[in-house]
Amino acid sequence: MIPTGGPPFKPRAGSAALLPFPWYGVPHVAEQTSTVRVALAERSYDIQIGSGNLSGLSAFLRHRSSSGHAVLVTDTTVDGLYADQLGDELAEQQWEVQVLVVEAGEQSKAIEVATELWETMLAEGTDRQSLVLAVGGGVVGDLAGFVAATFARGLEFFQVPTTLLAQVDSSVGGKVGINLPGAKNMVGAFWQPQGVLIDVDVLQTLPAREYRAGLAEVVKYGVILDADFFAYLEDHRDAIQAQDPTALRYVVERCCRLKADVVAADERETTGLRAVLNYGHTFAHALEAAGNYGALLHGEAVAMGMMCAARLAARLGRMDQALVDRQQALLEAWQLPLTLPDYPGEELVNLMYRDKKVAAGQLRFVLPDRLGHVEVVGDVRVDDVLAALQ
Amino acid sequence: MIPTGGPPFKPRAGSAALLPFPWYGVPHVAEQTSTVRVALAERSYDIQIGSGNLSGLSAFLRHRSSSGHAVLVTDTTVDGLYADQLGDELAEQQWEVQVLVVEAGEQSKAIEVATELWETMLAEGTDRQSLVLAVGGGVVGDLAGFVAATFARGLEFFQVPTTLLAQVDSSVGGKVGINLPGAKNMVGAFWQPQGVLIDVDVLQTLPAREYRAGLAEVVKYGVILDADFFAYLEDHRDAIQAQDPTALRYVVERCCRLKADVVAADERETTGLRAVLNYGHTFAHALEAAGNYGALLHGEAVAMGMMCAARLAARLGRMDQALVDRQQALLEAWQLPLTLPDYPGEELVNLMYRDKKVAAGQLRFVLPDRLGHVEVVGDVRVDDVLAALQ
Repeated sequence: MIPTGGPPFKPRAGSAALLPFPWYGVPHVAEQTSTVRVALAERSYDIQIGSGNLSGLSAFLRHRSSSGHAVLVTDTTVDGLYADQLGDELAEQQWEVQVLVVEAGEQSKAIEVATELWETMLAEGTDRQSLVLAVGGGVVGDLAGFVAATFARGLEFFQVPTTLLAQVDSSVGGKVGINLPGAKNMVGAFWQPQGVLIDVDVLQTLPAREYRAGLAEVVKYGVILDADFFAYLEDHRDAIQAQDPTALRYVVERCCRLKADVVAADERETTGLRAVLNYGHTFAHALEAAGNYGALLHGEAVAMGMMCAARLAARLGRMDQALVDRQQALLEAWQLPLTLPDYPGEELVNLMYRDKKVAAGQLRFVLPDRLGHVEVVGDVRVDDVLAALQ
Repeated sequence: MIPTGGPPFKPRAGSAALLPFPWYGVPHVAEQTSTVRVALAERSYDIQIGSGNLSGLSAFLRHRSSSGHAVLVTDTTVDGLYADQLGDELAEQQWEVQVLVVEAGEQSKAIEVATELWETMLAEGTDRQSLVLAVGGGVVGDLAGFVAATFARGLEFFQVPTTLLAQVDSSVGGKVGINLPGAKNMVGAFWQPQGVLIDVDVLQTLPAREYRAGLAEVVKYGVILDADFFAYLEDHRDAIQAQDPTALRYVVERCCRLKADVVAADERETTGLRAVLNYGHTFAHALEAAGNYGALLHGEAVAMGMMCAARLAARLGRMDQALVDRQQALLEAWQLPLTLPDYPGEELVNLMYRDKKVAAGQLRFVLPDRLGHVEVVGDVRVDDVLAALQ
């Protein structure tokens, strides 16, 4: 049997709440939301982006589901900030709610935690008519999505991402999963949500370091897909750093739109198109693995990985040094750490070979040739990879 | 971490084999195979049914996959009979092969076993270009299919079912999964194979009790979908009992065709059509659970469950007693046990409420009204259910 150890989450019966939301009744929802449609035939869904729109969650769910039972999965950090109140609010709106709280942090993306979620859901009477609602960052979304994809062969799934990284990246596209020891996201599925509700106001409680890490993925979209967006980021870097709501809603919407279009064209990463989203990620995953997923935030590793990829592209003569410098200037303006930890280069290369994106034993890199355009490059010499790590 | 305990399987590197197959070179494959196409748009696939066609496995795989690496999952019983040799044969045909052997029996459909498979596959260099090949009965197919569905977010999957039950039922339709304690198939996915190769000759080594259990599902297809097929079974009951190859190939092909058509019309059990396949199964799952999945074979529980369902249908005035008697006569001719174990009726009803097919807390039964036609009935009184258990 699975060892239980300390309970990583606490089930809690839904109950009527007496506390109103701080934003309850504020009539600005309609004006301040926009919608990005992810076009995936019968799996199409909406991403609603706004400020203060969290109060409309019940209506958002009811519009897209006939379920009356929500399994709300969150973590110990987000529970006290938003999820606890959201659960109460749903219960007040006649939902049957179970709130399942896992420990905050990457270590919750584990088989043992998924197992305890499955077993608790079974014990609490979850059935095929229930839905799973992830309220949290990428870890909660990936874990809850995997549990939704597999419980009773698949439940409806909704997301309320509460970190910038989850809002612009991990909540879009249907990738869900858990880690194996030493191999991130090695067990998982493609499981599209029925809807994603993004309230940028929740980022006000996000630690500054996590906000900055999310900005690394924002920069990524500009480099790989959209030169105009990159220029917008340069022009608005102070407003974005200050979390100006208007700039932030635009940034999140633009990133979701860019990613949604890529996902629509290559849902299951089979044509190679979706691979462009992995810019910087072959390096980043190795850096994260070398630090046992504890030293760097994912976005910080992505910032470093994008610098490695840009240096590699320049070294191979695929790209101008000027673009390497522009990317570096933007990342530095947002105080992203760009100096790699002191891991041996050979160790990092070995870790890259364990990446899921290795095809038939060959390392592949997503490399820019100009702003807004990348290509997947397969025939890279290990020497050049090692040099790009410097 | 997951406790390892005794290793439930042994990984083995693929190596060139010197032993020819017993059927190697026998030129009767083409004449004795037929193909059932499962029509699921881009997930369509073939079921090839024959006698002695196992020797064509490598070609069957190559025709449908560009992979050169097969993770062959089997159990301790089938390994020595067929899987070991098949692995050697594939290695001889230039496949890279890992054979992973789990303990025979339902207890291998468990998270701990799936976890060890995932971790061994990772350690052995399995990547997105690998395929998973299940060689065995329903347990092996369901477990290997779940691992295929989830490793690196999904690998190609092939099946060589070696029990009658797996050949006529569990290898068709894409349901894969593992059990939670007390809840069968509670964690899983819909994951269609790229191909299924059925050789009825392998049934010669199947224990008589398991063969009989498989015949229960065969009877099911006649009752729910095909009165002519039911009459064929009555007319050929001795030939079928004696495993006459011609009769057997026809039976397997007909069952696969019937199930494939249902699956094509309702792949994910969303329209209610696929529910007809659950005739007898609400009762059967409760009987299996009451015996901790150790007292009855699934097919034996299905035989008992079909008798309960038929009695319930007659009691509700939906069906003639004559059909109850015809079904009973056929099941008895094949020596299927029809007397229920001595479990309290209330316990069985409670177990039925835990079934995945419960909709909004209401028990539902698939009940025949005439031979070849069933309906899903939702408003059944517990008194009538208890009476049908007698």
